[in-house]
Amino acid sequence: MDRQLDQLLSSAGRPALCQSVLPALLGCIADIARTLRTSHTVALAGTANAFGDDQLNVDVAAEKLVRDALAKCPAVVAASSEEDPAERPVRHSRDAGQTAEEASSEQYTVAFDPLDGSSIIAPNWTVGTIVGIWDGASALRQPPAERQVAAVLGVYGPRTTAIVALRVPGAEAACLEVGIGDQDFRFHVIRSRVRFADPPFATRYFAPANLRAAAESPSYMRLITQYVGKKYTLRYSGGLVPDVVHALAKGHGVYVSPVTAASRAKLRRLYELCPIALVVECAGGRAIDPVDGEEILARPLEGCDDRAGLVCGTTDEVDEVKRELLGASLESCR
Amino acid sequence: MDRQLDQLLSSAGRPALCQSVLPALLGCIADIARTLRTSHTVALAGTANAFGDDQLNVDVAAEKLVRDALAKCPAVVAASSEEDPAERPVRHSRDAGQTAEEASSEQYTVAFDPLDGSSIIAPNWTVGTIVGIWDGASALRQPPAERQVAAVLGVYGPRTTAIVALRVPGAEAACLEVGIGDQDFRFHVIRSRVRFADPPFATRYFAPANLRAAAESPSYMRLITQYVGKKYTLRYSGGLVPDVVHALAKGHGVYVSPVTAASRAKLRRLYELCPIALVVECAGGRAIDPVDGEEILARPLEGCDDRAGLVCGTTDEVDEVKRELLGASLESCR
Repeated sequence: MDRQLDQLLSSAGRPALCQSVLPALLGCIADIARTLRTSHTVALAGTANAFGDDQLNVDVAAEKLVRDALAKCPAVVAASSEEDPAERPVRHSRDAGQTAEEASSEQYTVAFDPLDGSSIIAPNWTVGTIVGIWDGASALRQPPAERQVAAVLGVYGPRTTAIVALRVPGAEAACLEVGIGDQDFRFHVIRSRVRFADPPFATRYFAPANLRAAAESPSYMRLITQYVGKKYTLRYSGGLVPDVVHALAKGHGVYVSPVTAASRAKLRRLYELCPIALVVECAGGRAIDPVDGEEILARPLEGCDDRAGLVCGTTDEVDEVKRELLGASLESCR
Repeated sequence: MDRQLDQLLSSAGRPALCQSVLPALLGCIADIARTLRTSHTVALAGTANAFGDDQLNVDVAAEKLVRDALAKCPAVVAASSEEDPAERPVRHSRDAGQTAEEASSEQYTVAFDPLDGSSIIAPNWTVGTIVGIWDGASALRQPPAERQVAAVLGVYGPRTTAIVALRVPGAEAACLEVGIGDQDFRFHVIRSRVRFADPPFATRYFAPANLRAAAESPSYMRLITQYVGKKYTLRYSGGLVPDVVHALAKGHGVYVSPVTAASRAKLRRLYELCPIALVVECAGGRAIDPVDGEEILARPLEGCDDRAGLVCGTTDEVDEVKRELLGASLESCR
């Protein structure tokens, strides 16, 4: 592994996590990138009506690659994914020899969405993989802010990159961007410290998800109108990973996916929201539930299929959205 | 070259165009894809303040690859690009042996934007290359609808793909999608007939470019509000190639980049609008100038730097935007 990456990770004092699990996941992202690169016919089918089935093919391929990677990590004891949403013990492959470090007390549960953004695979837009790594033998009924210790976002675009966030109790939080070579699994650190910037901002960005909800939510429509009036720049791909990574790359941005009566919460807390929230927080931003304004990582998960909306990005922007979307209801509670 | 691709192109009756120029451009798109794939450090710099210089590095690399490709095509007599916006004769490389076909009457001028979407390279979003191919020794002061006979869009995302549009006088117009292998320059036809779909549409998409203009244009703001009210799905990457290719992949979509007093026309007609308009028309869609509602390809270019706004996509949607944006002014002319 890249020496700088090794140094950055080793400070966490979690040898199995940093020398086995994270490298395995980065290698797996290289594998998924290669699979996508050659999956022209899958994408073709995506343009036809029978999208469901073919989408499943790519998803299943990515799912298998992640599971194969985890099978080589003795410290990963349980896993669940958006494709198979139940926590199950991980069967380790024969070559997963347990090193001295790994025989330590480290035990992890991994929750992942192998391929997020299936609707934009056919047009060849950037898509991603989302992974959350939890201390212990389950991610459920645990305080996410403490127990989810790492998250990895794989980004499949013109290049293959990954965002790695690490927040181990007792160590400083880290968020870094890694470039991933296609052929030889070489990783190198592109940015050792991914951070939202401080004001003033040359350009301010907004990503309004679930925009159809604005038709029935005057406060969401007002928010959109305000962004337009304040000349924010619109960037919205519809892929959660690229949309959040855009803000991280620019140093500014706010992603808003509200929930209304007719437009239900659809982001999965375990596979999408918790890892994204950890990344955003480790980069100095904020991620909240638009329904009550609470931090995404504040509430334990009840089950693998828990869902919610999301507001995340630059802290001040998130606070502003909270006031705008919840201001009236908070007022009425007084 | 892929046999199906060969067959599709050969019907145009332009051997130099179809057996030399287009294959050279597709090979060049594979080269640019590989360059981007390994340009992690360039993208890094893109996240810093000194974006201009580093953006230039990737642009210049892509520019050189296109020029090198054109130098091998004896039929290409002149070229100009967004990076070097003046039509100049092409100096052919020594290995550009002129075949019997190429010694024919075919003479082309190529206009290209080597790398469109520099602002979204750092976040690793899909970007593109835009190429227009014109009959004769110049693209200027010619009727674009007749003289621009082909266009190629390179799409650099998780995969590398290209859209090829061909409209040679006397032959049927064609629009096809090609998958491009990374390693071995293999091309294969993903879709032999790229077409906007007919209603009814399961999902309708809109891509509102230059959204800040809505702050000073009530008609543009009204248009956006209508899309929200009619539950259109928002997809807007800010890259012209991915935004248009999204509509082509989904079979529906409308891209709107209006022009207002404070927000001037910034899309270049020669390097961006004309090739995009040819692709959209060959796929059965429509591309108009939002200022007067005229077809993009109706008016000859005065110079290499001519600029305009753009409304393009599904024909009915473009007509609707025209009514919405120009309705009032058309009314007042009566």
